[in-house]
Amino acid sequence: MEYYIPSRYVSQAALEAADGVSPGKYTVGLGQDRMAFVDDREDANSIALSALQRLLDSYGLDPASIGRLEVGTESLVDKSKSTKTTLMALLGKNASVEGATVLNACYGGTAAVLNSAAWVESSEWDGRYAVAVAGDIAVYEAGPARPTGGAGAVAMLIGPRAPLALVPRSRTTHATDVYDFYKPAMNSEYPAVDGKLSQVSYLSAVDACYSGTMARLGAARLRDAFDHVAFHSPYNKLVQQSYRRMLFNDAVRAKACGAPLPPPLEALAPFAALPHAATMGNKDLDKALAALPVGAEYADVVGPTEALSRGIGNSYTAALWANVACLVASKGGELRGKRVGAFSYGSGAIATMMALRGGEGDGGFSLERMAAALDVKKRLAARTEASPAELLHALKLREDAYGRAGRAPAGAVEHVPAGAWFLKEVAADGSRKYARKG
Amino acid sequence: MEYYIPSRYVSQAALEAADGVSPGKYTVGLGQDRMAFVDDREDANSIALSALQRLLDSYGLDPASIGRLEVGTESLVDKSKSTKTTLMALLGKNASVEGATVLNACYGGTAAVLNSAAWVESSEWDGRYAVAVAGDIAVYEAGPARPTGGAGAVAMLIGPRAPLALVPRSRTTHATDVYDFYKPAMNSEYPAVDGKLSQVSYLSAVDACYSGTMARLGAARLRDAFDHVAFHSPYNKLVQQSYRRMLFNDAVRAKACGAPLPPPLEALAPFAALPHAATMGNKDLDKALAALPVGAEYADVVGPTEALSRGIGNSYTAALWANVACLVASKGGELRGKRVGAFSYGSGAIATMMALRGGEGDGGFSLERMAAALDVKKRLAARTEASPAELLHALKLREDAYGRAGRAPAGAVEHVPAGAWFLKEVAADGSRKYARKG
Repeated sequence: MEYYIPSRYVSQAALEAADGVSPGKYTVGLGQDRMAFVDDREDANSIALSALQRLLDSYGLDPASIGRLEVGTESLVDKSKSTKTTLMALLGKNASVEGATVLNACYGGTAAVLNSAAWVESSEWDGRYAVAVAGDIAVYEAGPARPTGGAGAVAMLIGPRAPLALVPRSRTTHATDVYDFYKPAMNSEYPAVDGKLSQVSYLSAVDACYSGTMARLGAARLRDAFDHVAFHSPYNKLVQQSYRRMLFNDAVRAKACGAPLPPPLEALAPFAALPHAATMGNKDLDKALAALPVGAEYADVVGPTEALSRGIGNSYTAALWANVACLVASKGGELRGKRVGAFSYGSGAIATMMALRGGEGDGGFSLERMAAALDVKKRLAARTEASPAELLHALKLREDAYGRAGRAPAGAVEHVPAGAWFLKEVAADGSRKYARKG
Repeated sequence: MEYYIPSRYVSQAALEAADGVSPGKYTVGLGQDRMAFVDDREDANSIALSALQRLLDSYGLDPASIGRLEVGTESLVDKSKSTKTTLMALLGKNASVEGATVLNACYGGTAAVLNSAAWVESSEWDGRYAVAVAGDIAVYEAGPARPTGGAGAVAMLIGPRAPLALVPRSRTTHATDVYDFYKPAMNSEYPAVDGKLSQVSYLSAVDACYSGTMARLGAARLRDAFDHVAFHSPYNKLVQQSYRRMLFNDAVRAKACGAPLPPPLEALAPFAALPHAATMGNKDLDKALAALPVGAEYADVVGPTEALSRGIGNSYTAALWANVACLVASKGGELRGKRVGAFSYGSGAIATMMALRGGEGDGGFSLERMAAALDVKKRLAARTEASPAELLHALKLREDAYGRAGRAPAGAVEHVPAGAWFLKEVAADGSRKYARKG
């Protein structure tokens, strides 16, 4: 795995002050620390190029060794030409590369990973690697959703005998037809969001997917199945709630079997036999879940997945995989033999929970090498803090540039990190030219 | 396989007259007979719903028997919520359905088919069917590209022991970074097209994919490998040219082996040793190819694939699969033991050539049953001819509606075929409501 994060971020505490909201609204209420952002110098294609470039460079990969390349993104800059084809520019003379671009809100990266894994298992696999790239620029119109933005991209090399492996037959998918978060406005980069519906849809998917995967794994309690859990992270508070929601599912499962609720889940007894609908948006249940004394357990199970997303914000399709990368960066070889739950959610909606397992890698790949390359702490610290005014300026540049052709971006190349790709020009015909910095 | 085609079409001869171009410009120059069209009552979601509905109805499928559903389209009505999630409305209580929506110009349907096939071969396959749906509404601004529009959707049931099977290890993919046809204008449904570049890119992909697949199949000449060939069909003339281009590849291959060019390819001798670049846009070669006496062979090999696309126009992601469906409708059980080449091209660009083989089906599926259900001739004949003025009116309604919320479509429901889905309303929040006719 490799990833790309922008050079600039704004602190959520500074945003709280600038927005005139009560202190803690973003830092505690959303659970976010910092939000990465880019201006019109970067787009979905450039951040995907930057992540793939890092993957090629970090591992010294021969472009000819890649037989499949698939992208997940929902930050489209073209409604037909796929980001996958733009990435072909990094593969030299190798044109024999399957895969396209997947679209489904924040789920596209996960679809790319699962499609790639199926290819490796199929009769069509020719021994080469698959690469899944997931990347997005999350921006919102002014208002309460704006601090839930972010930006980032992840590139993943996929093949057999990986140091972090998908556990066969562990996954459960839940797909529904819902308008919780969507992008119907063609003349704007900003989404339409029904925050409450999206939260209900997300947590309902947690219920369905977690129940299914626990049944597949023959496990009764979270810790029987997983040492760590990584979530799709629109904002960290929802991750905290989802973890507790999984514990509630453990209580429901125990109750259904007539088993006593194990400590510390006894407090959930009044809710464990309620019909499912009565458990969604149930304030008493939410209070009981928030009061569960599982802070230390959460810090152990989920904590090591959080630094990257708390530091860059939502990266949509990349978010879950950034959190998995963060776990690897944090634990390295300690993940050997450890079981990791991974929950992906994309509005609209499709969600999947699956199990991963740390192990020995092959072909020179190992958890230790991954952790060294990922180096999350250092890369987060190497960024530059910008002011809320700079964020607003960057968003204004993006608004001005959206859907327009025949111009170079107004954003300064100085904000592009060394070695990263950036947008050089949108030609009059709407085609996009990219260049690499330094 | 099942498919959906609009109720209305305009005759290309009538379009020639209305556009004041020389007779034959569209009918012979493009090789197209009729062009299907829809107004703002139908969109990418509704035509995909209509195709999937037909698949469920024709074969009496239990929605619970579907474990994967993936869509290919480039006629996006939302930049985040995928058509796949809208189709979930037809699967009742079954939410356990993998797959999302693939985006890459006209290639998305093929990606959905190949991803689905890999899933069936993977450790994650749970015995249920996969469904790939491909559908588009191809519209162009006024000008020479407008008569290359069209509309249609195909739904394909995918599982083991199918009456029409993918031949393992036969496929070759060619991906490049090119702006030949793309959709950078966010406020318009119309694409940007570099027609000449797109043709060169398409034919270069034919060369690369056909060479690769012939090597995989160990075949020297087209007829050694295939009884029939189906192509992605932007317009029929390009299909005719592609077939002859494959014959030129046979000549190049023979020449490279020092073998004599077999009749009737002797006339290609002066070109068979040219560097590849010198064979693209080479007017002398094009003339020699056009003069090859292979009309009867073409009618036999490609002819049975053509009626649907010549009668509805380009359906983008659906086009290749509509042509394959047309072949099945035309030949039925005669395809048993027959080998079919299939070439998919999506601008941007990704192309794949693969081999299919007709055989016995399982679970009640057979080539005969497919042919009876597809019934292409009858369904084409059941449509209504509309005037060029009606086409212009429908396109105007689409232009007026594009990207707008808070309104019901202006197009009359009377033009929606019985049993098909249509757009009821785009609510003020941008969400779309669909209904089924009759």
